[in-house]
Amino acid sequence: MFCQSCREEYGSEEAGTCKECYEEASETEEELHREIDHLKSLLSFLRLTPPPSPPPPHSGLLLLRSLADASASASASPSPVPAHRAVLVSRSPVFKAMLDNEMEESRSGVIKIPDASAKVLRSFIDYLYTAETTLDEDIAPELLILAEKYQVNHLKVFCERYMTSKVNHENAIACYAFAHRHNAKQLLDAALSLIIENMATLREREEYKELVERDPRLVVELYEAYLCRQANLASTKDSSNAKV
Amino acid sequence: MFCQSCREEYGSEEAGTCKECYEEASETEEELHREIDHLKSLLSFLRLTPPPSPPPPHSGLLLLRSLADASASASASPSPVPAHRAVLVSRSPVFKAMLDNEMEESRSGVIKIPDASAKVLRSFIDYLYTAETTLDEDIAPELLILAEKYQVNHLKVFCERYMTSKVNHENAIACYAFAHRHNAKQLLDAALSLIIENMATLREREEYKELVERDPRLVVELYEAYLCRQANLASTKDSSNAKV
Repeated sequence: MFCQSCREEYGSEEAGTCKECYEEASETEEELHREIDHLKSLLSFLRLTPPPSPPPPHSGLLLLRSLADASASASASPSPVPAHRAVLVSRSPVFKAMLDNEMEESRSGVIKIPDASAKVLRSFIDYLYTAETTLDEDIAPELLILAEKYQVNHLKVFCERYMTSKVNHENAIACYAFAHRHNAKQLLDAALSLIIENMATLREREEYKELVERDPRLVVELYEAYLCRQANLASTKDSSNAKV
Repeated sequence: MFCQSCREEYGSEEAGTCKECYEEASETEEELHREIDHLKSLLSFLRLTPPPSPPPPHSGLLLLRSLADASASASASPSPVPAHRAVLVSRSPVFKAMLDNEMEESRSGVIKIPDASAKVLRSFIDYLYTAETTLDEDIAPELLILAEKYQVNHLKVFCERYMTSKVNHENAIACYAFAHRHNAKQLLDAALSLIIENMATLREREEYKELVERDPRLVVELYEAYLCRQANLASTKDSSNAKV
């Protein structure tokens, strides 16, 4: 028999699907591709262009009027990032509360974001307009912190997924502590798994000693998770022995 | 052999794919579904909530400030539809020109949309925020007209696709004329095909007579398309006869 897909001959023990199912599956795949194209076109329609930062100093009143009506300002940077209230309010419940109610931010339109660097703040605001950003290992944790603080859950998930993909034996303890502080469950589990794999050498590591100093409670949780996993392993072994 | 997909038995003449290709295809399908989920989550993040229409009359200044900074006004309706300049400008090059330059609309923030009904205008503005709308046979052509006028191409394509799916022998002539007026190529082709199928009874139809009165040039184009298609058919026939 010849495979309709790869065109190679195969025997009955390597059989996959019948012709009808093959054709159906091909149609399904085409449909899925069409749906993806459609969703992508919706996305490119919905993306907004963030206002340029900073606005040109010699721009006239009319130009300014069509630009931003709010801004976010990092403490370390002299030039705030311009933005639109409509966008800020729709992406973050925290910004919404600030801008909709009688708060200083609502009157001035200026939101102070003290802990962020200018670069991270720019990425943060851009993400609110485009749902896109380029992450690296420096920017991801900083953006996650902002996303958590301003409840931009979509961005938080995005950063957490990136960080989880970068956990390794070297940074596992730091990631574990970070994930704990910022309620990042997926990252926490990934870091914990790696730490538990290397329990024997844990106590020699510098980051471990620092963590014991800084946050012993977290270390206790770590040991508890370890014990819990050991107990699970033991009971699995027992039950498989019992079966034998 | 048993099909891995439908679990039914089949003979070698009904063979579809080998096992390896079947497994690959299943993985591809899963990946596509994951991508669709991802795109949908981006979309729901990027959709904006259009400002309510009309705004509550007793709302305070602070509430108003976080609301719209522009509006679109249908001539037949007393209450304009509020909107945000940032959204209008990013979705339509025509609105952008109006609001960015020294035009009356830029100063007042009010865009007059004379030919639209209040209902259609509301759908139009909502689409700019959400890329969603519910079409029916009344609203689709009106929305298409607005989309064309303000160069919201995404919406125009959406309306045209809907209208094309609704062309039938009854409305083909009206659709043909409409499509011609509004540069809707896909709709034009669909309507033309249906008209040409019924050339024999064309001249008896009321819409045909009206079209001859109103826009004879269009009727000429119709006949030209008919002749063209006949010539094509004849040459296809000739070449297949020649082959025999």
